Amino acid sequence: MQHDRLQGSFSPDPEERNHQEEACAKNMAPSGEKKGILERLDAGEVVVGDGGFVFALEKRGYVKAGPWTPEASVEYPEAVRQLHREFLRAGSNVMQTFTFYASDDKLENRGNTQRFTGQQINEAACDLAREVANEGDALVAGGVSQTPSYLSCKSEEDVKAIFKKQIDVFVKKNVDFLIAEYFEHVEEAEWAVQVLKSTGKPVAASLCMGPEGDLNGVSPGECAVRLVKAGAQIVGINCHFDPETCVKTVKLMKEGVEKAGLKAHYMSQPLAFHTPDCNRQGFIDLPEFPFALEPRILTRWEMQKYAREAYEAGIRFIGGCCGFEPYHIRAVAEELGPERGFLPAGSEKHGEWGSALAFHTKPWVRARARRDYWETLKPASGRPFCPSMSKPSAWGITKGHADLVQHKEATSKEELKALFDKATGKP
Amino acid sequence: MQHDRLQGSFSPDPEERNHQEEACAKNMAPSGEKKGILERLDAGEVVVGDGGFVFALEKRGYVKAGPWTPEASVEYPEAVRQLHREFLRAGSNVMQTFTFYASDDKLENRGNTQRFTGQQINEAACDLAREVANEGDALVAGGVSQTPSYLSCKSEEDVKAIFKKQIDVFVKKNVDFLIAEYFEHVEEAEWAVQVLKSTGKPVAASLCMGPEGDLNGVSPGECAVRLVKAGAQIVGINCHFDPETCVKTVKLMKEGVEKAGLKAHYMSQPLAFHTPDCNRQGFIDLPEFPFALEPRILTRWEMQKYAREAYEAGIRFIGGCCGFEPYHIRAVAEELGPERGFLPAGSEKHGEWGSALAFHTKPWVRARARRDYWETLKPASGRPFCPSMSKPSAWGITKGHADLVQHKEATSKEELKALFDKATGKP
Amino acid sequence: MQHDRLQGSFSPDPEERNHQEEACAKNMAPSGEKKGILERLDAGEVVVGDGGFVFALEKRGYVKAGPWTPEASVEYPEAVRQLHREFLRAGSNVMQTFTFYASDDKLENRGNTQRFTGQQINEAACDLAREVANEGDALVAGGVSQTPSYLSCKSEEDVKAIFKKQIDVFVKKNVDFLIAEYFEHVEEAEWAVQVLKSTGKPVAASLCMGPEGDLNGVSPGECAVRLVKAGAQIVGINCHFDPETCVKTVKLMKEGVEKAGLKAHYMSQPLAFHTPDCNRQGFIDLPEFPFALEPRILTRWEMQKYAREAYEAGIRFIGGCCGFEPYHIRAVAEELGPERGFLPAGSEKHGEWGSALAFHTKPWVRARARRDYWETLKPASGRPFCPSMSKPSAWGITKGHADLVQHKEATSKEELKALFDKATGKP
Amino acid sequence: MQHDRLQGSFSPDPEERNHQEEACAKNMAPSGEKKGILERLDAGEVVVGDGGFVFALEKRGYVKAGPWTPEASVEYPEAVRQLHREFLRAGSNVMQTFTFYASDDKLENRGNTQRFTGQQINEAACDLAREVANEGDALVAGGVSQTPSYLSCKSEEDVKAIFKKQIDVFVKKNVDFLIAEYFEHVEEAEWAVQVLKSTGKPVAASLCMGPEGDLNGVSPGECAVRLVKAGAQIVGINCHFDPETCVKTVKLMKEGVEKAGLKAHYMSQPLAFHTPDCNRQGFIDLPEFPFALEPRILTRWEMQKYAREAYEAGIRFIGGCCGFEPYHIRAVAEELGPERGFLPAGSEKHGEWGSALAFHTKPWVRARARRDYWETLKPASGRPFCPSMSKPSAWGITKGHADLVQHKEATSKEELKALFDKATGKP
Repeated sequence: MQHDRLQGSFSPDPEERNHQEEACAKNMAPSGEKKGILERLDAGEVVVGDGGFVFALEKRGYVKAGPWTPEASVEYPEAVRQLHREFLRAGSNVMQTFTFYASDDKLENRGNTQRFTGQQINEAACDLAREVANEGDALVAGGVSQTPSYLSCKSEEDVKAIFKKQIDVFVKKNVDFLIAEYFEHVEEAEWAVQVLKSTGKPVAASLCMGPEGDLNGVSPGECAVRLVKAGAQIVGINCHFDPETCVKTVKLMKEGVEKAGLKAHYMSQPLAFHTPDCNRQGFIDLPEFPFALEPRILTRWEMQKYAREAYEAGIRFIGGCCGFEPYHIRAVAEELGPERGFLPAGSEKHGEWGSALAFHTKPWVRARARRDYWETLKPASGRPFCPSMSKPSAWGITKGHADLVQHKEATSKEELKALFDKATGKP
Repeated sequence: MQHDRLQGSFSPDPEERNHQEEACAKNMAPSGEKKGILERLDAGEVVVGDGGFVFALEKRGYVKAGPWTPEASVEYPEAVRQLHREFLRAGSNVMQTFTFYASDDKLENRGNTQRFTGQQINEAACDLAREVANEGDALVAGGVSQTPSYLSCKSEEDVKAIFKKQIDVFVKKNVDFLIAEYFEHVEEAEWAVQVLKSTGKPVAASLCMGPEGDLNGVSPGECAVRLVKAGAQIVGINCHFDPETCVKTVKLMKEGVEKAGLKAHYMSQPLAFHTPDCNRQGFIDLPEFPFALEPRILTRWEMQKYAREAYEAGIRFIGGCCGFEPYHIRAVAEELGPERGFLPAGSEKHGEWGSALAFHTKPWVRARARRDYWETLKPASGRPFCPSMSKPSAWGITKGHADLVQHKEATSKEELKALFDKATGKP
Repeated sequence: MQHDRLQGSFSPDPEERNHQEEACAKNMAPSGEKKGILERLDAGEVVVGDGGFVFALEKRGYVKAGPWTPEASVEYPEAVRQLHREFLRAGSNVMQTFTFYASDDKLENRGNTQRFTGQQINEAACDLAREVANEGDALVAGGVSQTPSYLSCKSEEDVKAIFKKQIDVFVKKNVDFLIAEYFEHVEEAEWAVQVLKSTGKPVAASLCMGPEGDLNGVSPGECAVRLVKAGAQIVGINCHFDPETCVKTVKLMKEGVEKAGLKAHYMSQPLAFHTPDCNRQGFIDLPEFPFALEPRILTRWEMQKYAREAYEAGIRFIGGCCGFEPYHIRAVAEELGPERGFLPAGSEKHGEWGSALAFHTKPWVRARARRDYWETLKPASGRPFCPSMSKPSAWGITKGHADLVQHKEATSKEELKALFDKATGKP
Repeated sequence: MQHDRLQGSFSPDPEERNHQEEACAKNMAPSGEKKGILERLDAGEVVVGDGGFVFALEKRGYVKAGPWTPEASVEYPEAVRQLHREFLRAGSNVMQTFTFYASDDKLENRGNTQRFTGQQINEAACDLAREVANEGDALVAGGVSQTPSYLSCKSEEDVKAIFKKQIDVFVKKNVDFLIAEYFEHVEEAEWAVQVLKSTGKPVAASLCMGPEGDLNGVSPGECAVRLVKAGAQIVGINCHFDPETCVKTVKLMKEGVEKAGLKAHYMSQPLAFHTPDCNRQGFIDLPEFPFALEPRILTRWEMQKYAREAYEAGIRFIGGCCGFEPYHIRAVAEELGPERGFLPAGSEKHGEWGSALAFHTKPWVRARARRDYWETLKPASGRPFCPSMSKPSAWGITKGHADLVQHKEATSKEELKALFDKATGKP
């Protein structure tokens, strides 16, 4: 699978593009021959994940920020399918079912009336992921995430029942492996892993926490140990923090696992937003969340830096979460091209390190067709009236607090007014 | 076509969502009944344009930055169709054919070998635009843009022949109107308008310049007068500068037209990037172009501000160019909802002014469900090691300079090295 | 007066320091032999001005921001004398009498009760300036500035009478030349020049305006012509804007004078604050004025850049205004050392371009002992929560507006409350 | 000593200024009656320190950055005296002798040939401090600081002999107490405290470290315990970090002392520069050190915040170090006016919280005459091309490394070139 474009120097030669297309064609292996997730990781291969669907589809017009629920799998399958395809083309080996927050307790939360059941949404999502996975060398991963039931202090039994309903669909649809992701409390993640483990399929588990640990202050090392003991073969971090912070946190997890004499594979699926100013709750507490995060979006070059750092930290399942667009995943795949032995199909439309700028009309833009230019550039914001960091606005509350308890009714105008007044410091 | 959500206050009521869907359904009028572009503008209606395809599809993996050519219309029609659909859903009334740089002289420029002819690409693009336009209340606009032939000092006759080849396809495919856009020299734009005008279809013309005028220093007012005299019914600005600068420049064009006792309609299709630090050549000269512009991306709220300012300046054809994603166009359509009398279909998945955050789990995020929060927020970049403005790197050359002359051969390694040395100040 | 340290390369040789001290000693010529201001400028010599006293002495505890009056000349002569000495040592050829706002109408304005008459203050200021000027090669310049009387629409006769009272002291104390500075309206500056001119002494006149012209919109070119015609031999700009803007404005003045076929010398005494975000009224309208301007203070290297640009623009009287500390003036004198033929006495304690860092304990700081390091450094603010530019808060009023009319009574609490409410947008 | 201006609301009443002058007069108690440093602290009084002399006098032209040695005490006594007076007037209760780096081993270091002995400098400094201390309610503190001998691994005996030479002068001149300050290694500070303690005078000791501890990684808590055990009655932090970091570090020291069952008083004398981006070695490693720190200078309002935070942390000896100008100390004294019972003499020329802006000519500046305006302002840098944070350039070496060893010879050109190449990454 060696490929001569991997040497990195630029060549606009059409012959070479044909080579590349062949190489990409190899990437499109039929589903039957595919190696499983653990086979790949055990063999030391890099597994490239995909990007987050809720943010990408929100910008395309198919997900509503606030509830963030994935009914688009039923309503607008062509939009979901297209996004899967773009990530596959960008180099992803994993098609995560678009089932984030697709548990019935979440679908009904806070007045978010649904015309589709959780089962309908989960099934449609599995079918779309499988359809596209079959077009290339990707596996289907069924995903569950944290539940309003847990935040509302429901029992272990109740919370596990919620997960069980989604898992039943994943088993029926025969996904390749399972991911428990976006957990703020390691306890809930353990419960999820236990349910997922009961299927016999490989299980990955990732928390949305930083180096300070989960919302109860359990350290990354201890969280990782608990997840491995609960049955996860792959552990790591997703969402809530930028790549740098996530890699740092996975390192702490790895240290914990190794110190405990255990074994695991590691994954990271961070935000595509810079969050140096976050506190423990991550980007949700930043004043810009979720509608003014644009200035924080990582460039493709910053993403290549992430891929390299994750690889060097021993992480082999390397993907993304909110903010990742297909070109961000392509950047991961290009950075790790030498390790993987091939470039993704989407590189057909991308000169590595900007080399295709050699085609540009203006000579000073052609002069940017080189790696050191992009690696050292400090991109300006074009926003001189804005600061470069924000103070997070956390209210210091977590699981069990009255303001966090789930209810089916929409937030009333009176409740909203009380929140606005609290936020603006009115008595 | 009045719609009760237009009052702006938030209501998560499901009844209302049904209303909205009906309203959107009205928007989906069959093609036969559609009013033409001039009918709409003469009636004072707002026409919402679409966003730029090359940047959006580059991020999705279907366009190569550098040549920026649109062969994806033939290669990956589903990707182009999906983007059209997202803009339609976001409220666009215009489906521009994805034919930017689809002239044969450009397709062959600088070693960019093509497997498709200009004719193939232009035809496929027309078909895709028409297919999606038929799904809603949108018109198809065939577009031409500046040519390497002009920059290489080819004759008026030669340049016009280039335009003619694209126009022939547009006429055959019976597009609804024509746009000559992205011209840096008013002279070339006049030639294009003259060719377009010969079809008998309505003609729009937009330059990519700022208040200082075109690359020869012809003022915006004079440019506008010349375009109107050449036959354009709609004149304005697209690309190269941020919304604020574009609106300012269109105002100067309008003043020029009115002072000359002429009449015209006005359009603006700016970048979705902040460019306070640009010089005459616009964002191409910024060091961040084209791969590190992320921190400059406008938020949806900044886009609503643009839509309002454009409307107040008397502009009625309001769209976008590079950097615009579907949610940016939706922001334009939401801001002008009261003037248009309806919200776009995509608002089904968007609480105006963040109102759907009332569904969020965290109470301090629910407190952001209000207009004044988002209108006054100064978004941080999360990049404390980066500046907020850059020095543009223009080399002060234009049409006719040896470095700008078109050639079919790819830029050689020697030529590139010379450019790198020039850029880094080596002797 | 050639000096071998002027070659610029660093030498920590003690022999050389003795040389330097001798060179500096030459600088300390007895008063009787001194060349006048016009002799120097006519001979093409660089005249280094001093820095602003009100800001420097405010930080030292001897001037009150708000009234900004100079009674310290009487109250704390040792503090005023010390600042004169520091500027002399830094290379200044001009000791401006500390008589800014020392007109009786200003001293009594808005409840600012005084224990000293204008005459007492002006006399003390002249004596201090002369005492220190006699210690080196500096001239004494008596200064007048804009008056509350003019803003309150008093007659030409009344305003000129105000100037006359100060001038009488300057004549009695036999200052070397006169400066009319800090005028926002060219008309008032003309009146001042006419009064100053009547003494027979050389007259310099500088306005506090930017490229847009004075507060009535009179262009810099026309302002300069009017001042020259009124009798000023030296014209230019002081205060209100940063060095870059001031040099740009003096260039416009020079163009105007030359176009009119007149002759003049040129001066610039800008702020030591960066003000890229100012409007016509300058730094007073910036929200940071006057107590939060710290992040805008120029470094010594930025000051050397200013000195070079001013020199290249043909300006030969080069000094500073608010924000200038002695080391800023020394930077001007060091930059223009080659042109002047000597370094200032204060350079005894300064390695040019940081060369004395070669003595530093830490090797990585010793590595900063070189010109290119400091010339290219982009200094960080250490303030990630602050923006890099501000919106000025001008209320768009000028001479004659009720809010600007002088009165002896202090602003009452009711008046202040009304201003606070206006400023915070309360009805 | 109660003073009616302490109520904080503004009054421009001249009667009141007379009151204030009387109050200040009380402050000017004759030396004989003064309470000692420990009496004051034991009584719970606030002791206001002074600011750093080397940076302030460098800007005035009397200290050379690089060697940073204090020979100005002999050469330019009027300049040193004037700075003492300004700090006294600003509210300082401590006149530190200007003897920083006045040990013979430092005076001779790296080619820095001196015409004065350490003894001459130390004596002159004591006389100046005593002269000004006698003008008000201030004590004289003799100071020693870290030595090149320690960095060069000289023996405890040798290092102590260095301190002993300075102490002998302080005893002869009968200073009121002693300060060992600016130590990067607690071990050397202990040695200094032991020597100082032998005099029988009260001893204060402050390290220049942050929360990570000294350069050997000894924690702040342990450092404090060791200093107290060595005999220091007052312990704390000076220099190297901004006020926020210093207060945080002193808190850790206090916790350590209390946990060890010991007792001490606490002091903080931080930088007047924002340093959020420092690593363990503090501001020296910032690229801006020492000649481009201007954008980091604290405003007076930020200094008031510091004074309040230090007070609330239990610190009672509150002063400053490099970057502090007299107005910064005045801000400390004004903030703690209610606790001290009086305002400093310098407040005669300062309206608290900008109240004297009520005298300003422009109404929108008069509207800034209020506390909430200045407390909430986020000052812009006026530097859109600069970042807000820097990467420190530490080379990770400390005591004992060859590059740090003292030598009498100046750094040679060859050595400098090697350093430049190392700094710019050349091979």
